[in-house]
Amino acid sequence: MSKVLMGAKPLLYPAPTVLVGTNVAGKPNFMAVAWCGIVNSEPAMISVAIRNHRYTHQGITQNLAFSVNIPSVEMVKETDYCGIISGQDVDKAAVCQFKVFYGKLDNAPLIEQCPVNLECKVTQMLNLGSHSLFVGRIEESHVSENCLTDGDPDIEKINPITFIVGSSRQYRALGEVVARAFSVGKEMETGAKH
Amino acid sequence: MSKVLMGAKPLLYPAPTVLVGTNVAGKPNFMAVAWCGIVNSEPAMISVAIRNHRYTHQGITQNLAFSVNIPSVEMVKETDYCGIISGQDVDKAAVCQFKVFYGKLDNAPLIEQCPVNLECKVTQMLNLGSHSLFVGRIEESHVSENCLTDGDPDIEKINPITFIVGSSRQYRALGEVVARAFSVGKEMETGAKH
Repeated sequence: MSKVLMGAKPLLYPAPTVLVGTNVAGKPNFMAVAWCGIVNSEPAMISVAIRNHRYTHQGITQNLAFSVNIPSVEMVKETDYCGIISGQDVDKAAVCQFKVFYGKLDNAPLIEQCPVNLECKVTQMLNLGSHSLFVGRIEESHVSENCLTDGDPDIEKINPITFIVGSSRQYRALGEVVARAFSVGKEMETGAKH
Repeated sequence: MSKVLMGAKPLLYPAPTVLVGTNVAGKPNFMAVAWCGIVNSEPAMISVAIRNHRYTHQGITQNLAFSVNIPSVEMVKETDYCGIISGQDVDKAAVCQFKVFYGKLDNAPLIEQCPVNLECKVTQMLNLGSHSLFVGRIEESHVSENCLTDGDPDIEKINPITFIVGSSRQYRALGEVVARAFSVGKEMETGAKH
């Protein structure tokens, strides 16, 4: 198998697709973000990378708080819109008819229509160049009651969107279950101990 | 729609599934990681969160370098194995029959069978509690020639694995294309300017 060098490219497949919420100039604003990941388990923490010139960057810097809202496939048009348009120009929550609510934090606006909402307090900020990485401690998680099965979040009902970087720039749904994690690997031979 | 409070939980759906490579005690070692994300565009940077007691943590701390290898669905058994077993006990690369190669960096081992390989130099480290977040500048990206179409990485051929956190702990493939990014949102009405 031969490899082709592509240069220094952010080729992580896939990325999640979330709506990052923050208050800017006293109003809730939401931005689509794919550069997002869990960064710690105990306590639960998440990071979002935001371009330094973005309106959301102002909001997070001012409030030291943000939300991560996970849209479902049905919300792909609104989600993409929130990645194209700046909150400086338009009240995106109004255009998208988001029902905004607040939980524990009074400065991390949440979107009712998104199946999952995480409220985060900023604990670290790193300016990495084009983007700043905001690391947030998750203070509370909200899941829509109709996306639970036996009290657990149900991925079929959440139906999240993934983002595929590159010239195809796709949003994709999740596909079939491939295996159970922390389980299928036990089938591997462990003969080659060193 | 009513919401249910779940406490402070890392409910990001979905997470990617990658194999983080590093040299430990002079040998290549790989660990399955879902807490991973792109953190900067210019320059391209990626972060991986590694539990502080893990063998991989030692390797990255010693080398200040790591690789991110994206396995395809066909490699799910090997991938999961690399999340269950410690490199302290077993030569995982040997058990999994990974063909290991090196690119620009002589201390970031890459897996030939993975369609995408990113070589990274550590630029920041944050100890966040259970995990350390290693931020790496991507020095070079390698893509298997048979995963390209017209010179671009082809997501159908890469066929990556996602990780679903929670009690179901699933690996899932990608599903259908939902929309084109930075495009479908233009269909939204923009009447509600503020």
